[in-house]
Amino acid sequence: MNGAESLVRTLVAGDVTVAFTNPGTSEMHFVAALDRVDGMRCVLCLHETVTTGAADGYWRMTNKPASTLLHLGPGLGNALANLHNLKRARSGVVNIVGEHATYHREFDAPLTSDIEGIAGTMSHWVKTSMSAKDVAADGAEAINVAMQAPGQIATLILPADTAWTEGTGPAKTAPVAAPAKVSEDAVEAAARAIEAGGKPLIVMGTWAVREKPMVHAAKIVAKTGAQIRAEGSNGRIERGVGRMALERVPYPVDVALAATKGVTHLILVGAKAPVAFFAYPNKPSILYPPEAEVVTLATPGEDAEDALARLAERLGADKATPVLNTPKRPDLPTGALNQDSIAAVLGHLLPENAIVTDESVTTGRNFFKDTHGAAPHDWLSLTGGAIGEGLPLAVGAAVACPDRKVVALQADGSGMYSLQALWTMARERLDVTVCIWANRTYAILKGELANVGAENPGRKAHDMLSLGDPNLDWVKLAGGMGVEATRVDTAEGFADAFAAANRRKGPFLIEVLL
Amino acid sequence: MNGAESLVRTLVAGDVTVAFTNPGTSEMHFVAALDRVDGMRCVLCLHETVTTGAADGYWRMTNKPASTLLHLGPGLGNALANLHNLKRARSGVVNIVGEHATYHREFDAPLTSDIEGIAGTMSHWVKTSMSAKDVAADGAEAINVAMQAPGQIATLILPADTAWTEGTGPAKTAPVAAPAKVSEDAVEAAARAIEAGGKPLIVMGTWAVREKPMVHAAKIVAKTGAQIRAEGSNGRIERGVGRMALERVPYPVDVALAATKGVTHLILVGAKAPVAFFAYPNKPSILYPPEAEVVTLATPGEDAEDALARLAERLGADKATPVLNTPKRPDLPTGALNQDSIAAVLGHLLPENAIVTDESVTTGRNFFKDTHGAAPHDWLSLTGGAIGEGLPLAVGAAVACPDRKVVALQADGSGMYSLQALWTMARERLDVTVCIWANRTYAILKGELANVGAENPGRKAHDMLSLGDPNLDWVKLAGGMGVEATRVDTAEGFADAFAAANRRKGPFLIEVLL
Repeated sequence: MNGAESLVRTLVAGDVTVAFTNPGTSEMHFVAALDRVDGMRCVLCLHETVTTGAADGYWRMTNKPASTLLHLGPGLGNALANLHNLKRARSGVVNIVGEHATYHREFDAPLTSDIEGIAGTMSHWVKTSMSAKDVAADGAEAINVAMQAPGQIATLILPADTAWTEGTGPAKTAPVAAPAKVSEDAVEAAARAIEAGGKPLIVMGTWAVREKPMVHAAKIVAKTGAQIRAEGSNGRIERGVGRMALERVPYPVDVALAATKGVTHLILVGAKAPVAFFAYPNKPSILYPPEAEVVTLATPGEDAEDALARLAERLGADKATPVLNTPKRPDLPTGALNQDSIAAVLGHLLPENAIVTDESVTTGRNFFKDTHGAAPHDWLSLTGGAIGEGLPLAVGAAVACPDRKVVALQADGSGMYSLQALWTMARERLDVTVCIWANRTYAILKGELANVGAENPGRKAHDMLSLGDPNLDWVKLAGGMGVEATRVDTAEGFADAFAAANRRKGPFLIEVLL
Repeated sequence: MNGAESLVRTLVAGDVTVAFTNPGTSEMHFVAALDRVDGMRCVLCLHETVTTGAADGYWRMTNKPASTLLHLGPGLGNALANLHNLKRARSGVVNIVGEHATYHREFDAPLTSDIEGIAGTMSHWVKTSMSAKDVAADGAEAINVAMQAPGQIATLILPADTAWTEGTGPAKTAPVAAPAKVSEDAVEAAARAIEAGGKPLIVMGTWAVREKPMVHAAKIVAKTGAQIRAEGSNGRIERGVGRMALERVPYPVDVALAATKGVTHLILVGAKAPVAFFAYPNKPSILYPPEAEVVTLATPGEDAEDALARLAERLGADKATPVLNTPKRPDLPTGALNQDSIAAVLGHLLPENAIVTDESVTTGRNFFKDTHGAAPHDWLSLTGGAIGEGLPLAVGAAVACPDRKVVALQADGSGMYSLQALWTMARERLDVTVCIWANRTYAILKGELANVGAENPGRKAHDMLSLGDPNLDWVKLAGGMGVEATRVDTAEGFADAFAAANRRKGPFLIEVLL
């Protein structure tokens, strides 16, 4: 059994059973091995940015790594932006990057590049297998690294000769340790911060924003009156009926500062203390009063559910009645399409147990209030700010959860970064309803240009932020990749299309003209 | 004048007058400055892979750098694959990468990443401006680095506060030195290698494969009977009537070895000694006899024209009659579309003075013979093997040479890597005829899979190399981005569409079904 097959068998034995791939020549032995090994689902992506975004979505829904298969340094380079988002979501992944044969590198063939250097910028662990005898053991180590809580990026570089030379057969992964419990001191410090008589704010992230830990948090809030928010961006929040009505730390600096005004204690649960996404002249970098005391109840890798349960008990809140969302759906709107009418349509029609991926300003900032009372759902947002993850995330979530409807809420500008994901949705018959908010502009940047003091942009600046001239036609773009699509320009048209898309199985795209 | 405006004025003063951009928040001051400065053409690209590919095409046609404008680490990551190709084309570019404000980095905001680390993997020079007072001088240095022969990658990282703080006004670039002349020893060594009585092979690259140096080379060949070839991949070859019928070092290892069999002396002119693109089991890495003597007449950064002229004189070949191409066009074919009929159509109809960008197996390997006698044209090929450069190259070439027709010969698989370039062609009304060879497969990989010994791929391997299910519809994809398009499935249909596209001005796409 050659090195490539030894690696594929190691992956499958280690429960890495999905590969998001765009292979090239140096990965052909790996591809050939796929035919000989059962249990690995291969999902072809037409650009590597789809592979890492999909692996991120897959991790967020399963808490286990997918593998990617990437072609040398440039393939890894193409994957880097969504690897950044994956890292910021605190997800895990096993990247397999093909490399020239060990003895071929010195000749500096045209595709030679510093793969370890590229990988090092976005990985927790990088290793180049130096012989076919190492490949399986290195692969097992990569899986263990990826699984380390809360999730890590392991990048294994596979020289072609280590793939085609006789290997060892599969290697075994080590048992995965459960997330660590927090110390008694951490619980006590958090309790004291809440009881100090000031204005405490609990900031929740990572595993804390799932249903069960949230119930403990809701009890703490009910008992103590502490404020509570989710981080600004979240890998996955469980939302809707039966969950907590958790708002996020706002994105705009001024709004965030108003929200945290007077806070005396920050209690972090699987979260970082909030900082501004960007710096602006004469505005602070941190989004809370600098004199506030910051207490960590649980790091992102620690057991947030256990920590919140113990904190609730310590505060005498474990018998309190948590305030959770009851069904409350906005009425279906008619007339013009805008942020409010879109939110109402989604709040009313969101399918039971949907997975929502969200990459837009249109839906990103003001949407939560209209969907607290919607059917239970998971909400996956852009975590690292590298645009172009929404559609790949939807691919990964749909592969992970074939029995759930995925709803991709997608801005047009960022959607263009990874539109190739639509083809993978079609090939894999993924059950995704894609909503494109077609405002034909980089909407976020118009606000940012004003923020930096350029209130009335001239022609050249305007052109750099506009996606008009020519307008994108998403119905054609989707059709070009085998995804059925329609265009709507009224609230009732959107409601009809959204309901119809959700009744069917498979990908469908709605271009929503704003 | 703030740092951003100081930098833009430095760029314009240094003759960097085109920026291929996808800006974000951290670059808004740079964008705002564009409105205040004349002389900088900004070309918006909907994914950063288009920016660096276009900058490469621009350099190849003008020998001067464009600037890119990229949004932090992920934006640079997206640009990396075509930066690799640009590097392998020995082109130059000035990358401007926005970064968080200097004081904001420590807070590890979501978009924070190791920009210098990413840049270092693909740049000859990386610098982060640490104050607004440095920005202009750093920008001038970046231009000088980029201009260093044969061309270099300079990456300037621009923290947001250095853009918005008061700067110095523009800085001046140093005078650009002409490419160095080669030594007398180099000329003498090359002459002796050719006169040694063996079987010499001249390998030409970079500036040597332009019209004037080629005439000297053709005289040397006429006089001495030396063999001559271009490198396997070339940034730009001047071809067609009046130029030399230069064939390249073949891509397949066996074919290349047959072509160089018995060679005793390799004379390199702006070229590297040929090596295999990839390693294969039991095949060598170098594509010439290991006992051959390798002599460098000119490095890629040295003056190839002068070197070849002096070598011709030394060999007494300066009065020889060079064999140059005379008009010879294949007949227009009818019937089935295949490599031969496509080649005949192009050879017959290629417009005078066209710029051809070539990224495909269909046209990449066997096409030269049918176009030696075509109208004079430039041929720009994929240099680094990172797929997805063809369409961006066409963008850059068309921006550089608005009076010339650009013909983009593009495989479907690699075309999908940067299809966003079509939108930029539409917005900028670029005069490009795009031919998509729609074989609905990663054709090159089917051969490579056979090369590694997997002759009969199973279903899973097959699916990883196939672009069918669903088929891509390039007419719709083009239409979705505002580019008119048609589909052809016969040789005469292709000929008609190609002739019609070339008669009009502006972008047009032909999907050629194979």
